[in-house]
Amino acid sequence: MIKKLFAEFFGTFWLVFGGCGSAVFAAGVPDIGIGLLGVSLAFGLTVLTMAYAVGHISGGHFNPAVSFGLLAGGRFSAKDLIPYVVAQCIGAIAAAGALYIILNGAGAFSAEGPGAFATNFYDMPGYHNRSYSMGAAFLAEFLLTAFFLIVIMGATDKWANGKFAGIAIGLALTLIHLISIPITNTSVNPARSLSQAVFVGGTAMSQLWLFWAAPILGGIVGGLIYKFLLQRDSVESDD
Amino acid sequence: MIKKLFAEFFGTFWLVFGGCGSAVFAAGVPDIGIGLLGVSLAFGLTVLTMAYAVGHISGGHFNPAVSFGLLAGGRFSAKDLIPYVVAQCIGAIAAAGALYIILNGAGAFSAEGPGAFATNFYDMPGYHNRSYSMGAAFLAEFLLTAFFLIVIMGATDKWANGKFAGIAIGLALTLIHLISIPITNTSVNPARSLSQAVFVGGTAMSQLWLFWAAPILGGIVGGLIYKFLLQRDSVESDD
Amino acid sequence: MIKKLFAEFFGTFWLVFGGCGSAVFAAGVPDIGIGLLGVSLAFGLTVLTMAYAVGHISGGHFNPAVSFGLLAGGRFSAKDLIPYVVAQCIGAIAAAGALYIILNGAGAFSAEGPGAFATNFYDMPGYHNRSYSMGAAFLAEFLLTAFFLIVIMGATDKWANGKFAGIAIGLALTLIHLISIPITNTSVNPARSLSQAVFVGGTAMSQLWLFWAAPILGGIVGGLIYKFLLQRDSVESDD
Amino acid sequence: MIKKLFAEFFGTFWLVFGGCGSAVFAAGVPDIGIGLLGVSLAFGLTVLTMAYAVGHISGGHFNPAVSFGLLAGGRFSAKDLIPYVVAQCIGAIAAAGALYIILNGAGAFSAEGPGAFATNFYDMPGYHNRSYSMGAAFLAEFLLTAFFLIVIMGATDKWANGKFAGIAIGLALTLIHLISIPITNTSVNPARSLSQAVFVGGTAMSQLWLFWAAPILGGIVGGLIYKFLLQRDSVESDD
Repeated sequence: MIKKLFAEFFGTFWLVFGGCGSAVFAAGVPDIGIGLLGVSLAFGLTVLTMAYAVGHISGGHFNPAVSFGLLAGGRFSAKDLIPYVVAQCIGAIAAAGALYIILNGAGAFSAEGPGAFATNFYDMPGYHNRSYSMGAAFLAEFLLTAFFLIVIMGATDKWANGKFAGIAIGLALTLIHLISIPITNTSVNPARSLSQAVFVGGTAMSQLWLFWAAPILGGIVGGLIYKFLLQRDSVESDD
Repeated sequence: MIKKLFAEFFGTFWLVFGGCGSAVFAAGVPDIGIGLLGVSLAFGLTVLTMAYAVGHISGGHFNPAVSFGLLAGGRFSAKDLIPYVVAQCIGAIAAAGALYIILNGAGAFSAEGPGAFATNFYDMPGYHNRSYSMGAAFLAEFLLTAFFLIVIMGATDKWANGKFAGIAIGLALTLIHLISIPITNTSVNPARSLSQAVFVGGTAMSQLWLFWAAPILGGIVGGLIYKFLLQRDSVESDD
Repeated sequence: MIKKLFAEFFGTFWLVFGGCGSAVFAAGVPDIGIGLLGVSLAFGLTVLTMAYAVGHISGGHFNPAVSFGLLAGGRFSAKDLIPYVVAQCIGAIAAAGALYIILNGAGAFSAEGPGAFATNFYDMPGYHNRSYSMGAAFLAEFLLTAFFLIVIMGATDKWANGKFAGIAIGLALTLIHLISIPITNTSVNPARSLSQAVFVGGTAMSQLWLFWAAPILGGIVGGLIYKFLLQRDSVESDD
Repeated sequence: MIKKLFAEFFGTFWLVFGGCGSAVFAAGVPDIGIGLLGVSLAFGLTVLTMAYAVGHISGGHFNPAVSFGLLAGGRFSAKDLIPYVVAQCIGAIAAAGALYIILNGAGAFSAEGPGAFATNFYDMPGYHNRSYSMGAAFLAEFLLTAFFLIVIMGATDKWANGKFAGIAIGLALTLIHLISIPITNTSVNPARSLSQAVFVGGTAMSQLWLFWAAPILGGIVGGLIYKFLLQRDSVESDD
């Protein structure tokens, strides 16, 4: 069990360090910055790389909403839920601390404005100067996490080509960011939202509830959708 | 059969929500937007991810032109054609509805101008201020869908490395968008064209016929090309 | 044999239609265009997708320099060389014709300036206003094609994970374009250079020799390097 | 053994030629340049492509820090360490020489300013006009190389889907560059830092120590972390 928790710790560290790190270090460099496309790719690659690296140890969740969703979908044990979530949150916060130290090495940390330090947000004018309402933000996070779990459940199904799951799941996270960074800065992962909010405080903390509630609810619904509407019981069970 | 239709419903929902969603939320953010490259990647990843997630359930068409083309190529049953197409169209429209709700959560829906809400179009000044004629648009959609079917038929051929088909087919859709978003906003998928036109109306509806006719015709021709010019009957049948 | 030639025809058509097509339609759209990164990705994806679609039929060369290189490396039969190269050139020219028709559907074809219609060039001020000499252009094309063949020979080696070859080879072509579009507009493929020069004429035709000589020479050297310096004769032959 | 060293020579040549080459030729082209995202992709693809091409010959290190890390992790033999590192450094320097010749073919070589000729640097105003301190640069290089080795050790673990290792490891290098080009121009590879510094001299040489010390130390720590905290001894050893 301890190796599983180390795997979740390092995996979630990598997710936050790589995903949020690419955002704070590289997204906004003038003219040649990686932009939202680069950040989207980075988030996805953290999961793709760690899925192949430690997925065979812990299953490679790196995300409380995924753990909840897999539990709902019948693929994960209830007794492991809390330890997994704790390991994920500790890993995320440790990564945010490393980002904070490195960013401060250039005197460039700032907690000002929507999305500062890659925090999630809603109901504030962000990208495009658009302000997405709380309801729109909730719906987006809910739907995206639900589909994320459908992809995870499906790609790891025993009838699927399971060895490709790391590619499908990692690139699903890239896709999710391509859609929704301009809406909420994209959470779909409560641990990632927590870690950035801890260092920024203020509104980032007061809005944090949505980035736990919507992804976890979406994850559970996605897990149930796959289990009851899509999953076959046996090779002959459909058609 | 019902699980197959659910698979097509969720898969086509994801295609429209992710592909058109990335276009309306993220493509045009100033300086750091994902641009046409990001939208192209998003469309491809919707198919790549759902191919590994539910491809083992329904075959993973998510596109009426693909269903027609596979029927022409001898890989799909005529009796399933209508149910598949209906499930795809319902999934696409549901996704467009979700995009509409979220976009309106920031007061940002607009039906004005060529390509509004990611609709397809021709014979109007669009990207680059170029106006591609109806004939050029038809030829582009026809050719691209024909090659899309050649890739699909070939990558899922029993002599091919079939487990990689999801990667090849998904990235083929990315490639198709890299070529042709500036021509027609890229359809190659009648369901995706329908869903966006429904919410925009006007010219998007009156031009919709082309984005059914050209992709379906291209799909059928692509399926036939593979079947008669490329497909081997047995391992010894060629050379 | 005829199915092999059809495979090379359609594969090379796709390479030119997708690679050069993305360049002429989508690279330079203001603000949101796909840029050289998008074109690089498009070229690579043409090969990746067709490698999985028809690679099992013809081996998936789509490029005279690859056919020469595989011949030098002992993986391809001399008697098939000319038919393959002819099929590739016909496919490339047909694709350039389709691009010409579609582009003219918006009145946007131009033969003016270095790199017009995605032609290759040297010794003229191009990207960055830099003018790479004939020698630099030759060296770049030679080295890149040599390494392209090393990747192809290695990834399809019987000791390698051959099913991944389509990914490795396609993305190698993406990488080659990421490096060298600003040097020569990137050839490494005589058929692709021929097809675009045919429609542009002038300097594109008079410089065409280099984009046959350097890639074919590089391909042969790459094939020989792999065969004599890298390839193992048996599983016990090294170390 | 000689074939292994040739594999490391050509692999590291490709890494520097492709990674640093894309940076010096293509990153900064106005409007359509590939930017830091393109350079990140190029670095990763050099490793991905060569891993499938020659990984079955030498293991595909292409990086002294990887060789040290795999030695620490118990996956590489001490007697091969020096020959591998020497072959890597010679390959890197040869590639930098080729870049120098081609770049000078357009009169475009320059040794001025932080990051000239793709050199690594710290404590100088670079991208974003931010100047990352020596400590921040060391921490970033250390952490990124440590996680690089965790991915390498994990993805090649006998319990993992080892055939996907080339994809996971190559894209891990892409991810690392997405995060850290703006910090240090990204090393995580002493051979790559050496080769560029040799041609630029000055500060690039005087700061070179950090880009040997931090990656090698990080690589060793990453190898040890995987070996002692994550790696299972047998299929039943955990949980």
